[in-house]
Amino acid sequence: MINIVKIGGNIINDENRLKNFLQDFSKIPGKKILVHGGGKEATELGKRLGVVAPMVNGRRVTDRETLDIVTMTYAGLINKRIVALLQDFGCNAVGLTGADGHLIPAKKRNPKPVDFGYVGDIDPKDINTFFLSMLLNVFTTPVFCAICYEPHGTLLNCNADSVASALAVACTQAEYQEDEDQDVVLTYCFEKPGVLRDVNDESSMIPVIYPSQFGHLVEKGIISEGMIPKIHNSFEAVVKGVAKVRICSAENLLSEKGTILCLPPDERD
Amino acid sequence: MINIVKIGGNIINDENRLKNFLQDFSKIPGKKILVHGGGKEATELGKRLGVVAPMVNGRRVTDRETLDIVTMTYAGLINKRIVALLQDFGCNAVGLTGADGHLIPAKKRNPKPVDFGYVGDIDPKDINTFFLSMLLNVFTTPVFCAICYEPHGTLLNCNADSVASALAVACTQAEYQEDEDQDVVLTYCFEKPGVLRDVNDESSMIPVIYPSQFGHLVEKGIISEGMIPKIHNSFEAVVKGVAKVRICSAENLLSEKGTILCLPPDERD
Repeated sequence: MINIVKIGGNIINDENRLKNFLQDFSKIPGKKILVHGGGKEATELGKRLGVVAPMVNGRRVTDRETLDIVTMTYAGLINKRIVALLQDFGCNAVGLTGADGHLIPAKKRNPKPVDFGYVGDIDPKDINTFFLSMLLNVFTTPVFCAICYEPHGTLLNCNADSVASALAVACTQAEYQEDEDQDVVLTYCFEKPGVLRDVNDESSMIPVIYPSQFGHLVEKGIISEGMIPKIHNSFEAVVKGVAKVRICSAENLLSEKGTILCLPPDERD
Repeated sequence: MINIVKIGGNIINDENRLKNFLQDFSKIPGKKILVHGGGKEATELGKRLGVVAPMVNGRRVTDRETLDIVTMTYAGLINKRIVALLQDFGCNAVGLTGADGHLIPAKKRNPKPVDFGYVGDIDPKDINTFFLSMLLNVFTTPVFCAICYEPHGTLLNCNADSVASALAVACTQAEYQEDEDQDVVLTYCFEKPGVLRDVNDESSMIPVIYPSQFGHLVEKGIISEGMIPKIHNSFEAVVKGVAKVRICSAENLLSEKGTILCLPPDERD
């Protein structure tokens, strides 16, 4: 089995929760990959430097200065802090961006209709599975921030959920030792226990969602805002061969708790 | 042959010289490793953030805030900028710190008599040559900044010249495919053409220095200041098996120009 785990920015901001999470992550046996979000440090650094990212349609634009700030913060400060902590927990982590080893080439998002600047999107087919497999096969644990790059171009700020989903899909295609369980499991860890029917009621967690239910849950407003792209990414991964996606709280990484997104039993291989 | 090349901070500060240098570096055939210095961006970022590193005996101390700033700048901004440029030149670079893959464990410098803070020293014997060989054997090019780490401890700011020298020595011990030329060559690139008898006269370059001449040249004041540790590192590497060290200008990377430091012919294996 290969575990791809994504940890969100809110956990990264909390030193103790991050340490506990990383200690748990280091206990996952076998091949694993960590993808981490940004956290508030990039915004704070921007504020201290007096750099204000322009906004278009209520969304932040990654201009040149902002790209430098997120590269410093995500690929430098946060990524290496996580790597050093994982090493401390006995997990041989290697901190990476998508540019390293040509691992995750991205495409700069079309500037029309809206130019979001140095922002990129990823196709799992472009991922360098040869090098990724090699890293996993020598018992290192890749730790990715969401900085990717456009070949012959520039570094690009990507979405960490999408990076995790693309890596999971790519892992289903990668070649590993033949005698192994090839199942790929993707886990999104954040501050809530899972997908909630009522965002204010933690007991309202939906235990399982099948792709056919997604549209209905969005229509009814049960899945909304930031959760829509996360679940969209999850089902893209599931349809492309990822065995299971779990959305859970960082504290429940090692348990089975959380919302499971998968194909219904009769549609699985 | 394995080439370890170190590029100094003054070149990194100059966008065009850096690009030209990286284009040349990408043309070196076979296995190679790049180590880069810091440049002035860390100092500038510190200034903008109002962080002033304390000084002891005229030397800068790496306190916690300074460590964060150099980690952001060296491991984030500069390292990933270099990786993206090398990818653009067709060189499959992987940007790393010493913490990644447990590659370069360091030891925090003894706080007595002077506490320089989060500063570390490296023993080539501690370098993870298994993972380093693996990276070289799959045709990736490791690109190191001088941020290393103390196992069960913290990230540490190390000297980039020493990192390059330690990597070169470790490479002489690493196991590669048997049919290969195992010679390791270390090249220090900076803004001068080599070691100069008169620092203001570029035609006064010393073409070759043997270990036995080092003390004499220091005594006479011909080798002084920053050049002393660089040459000390070089001879340590030469004595431990590195075939040749060259100190040259960044523009001469692909030529044979510069000062050569090696054992005299009758002392070579």
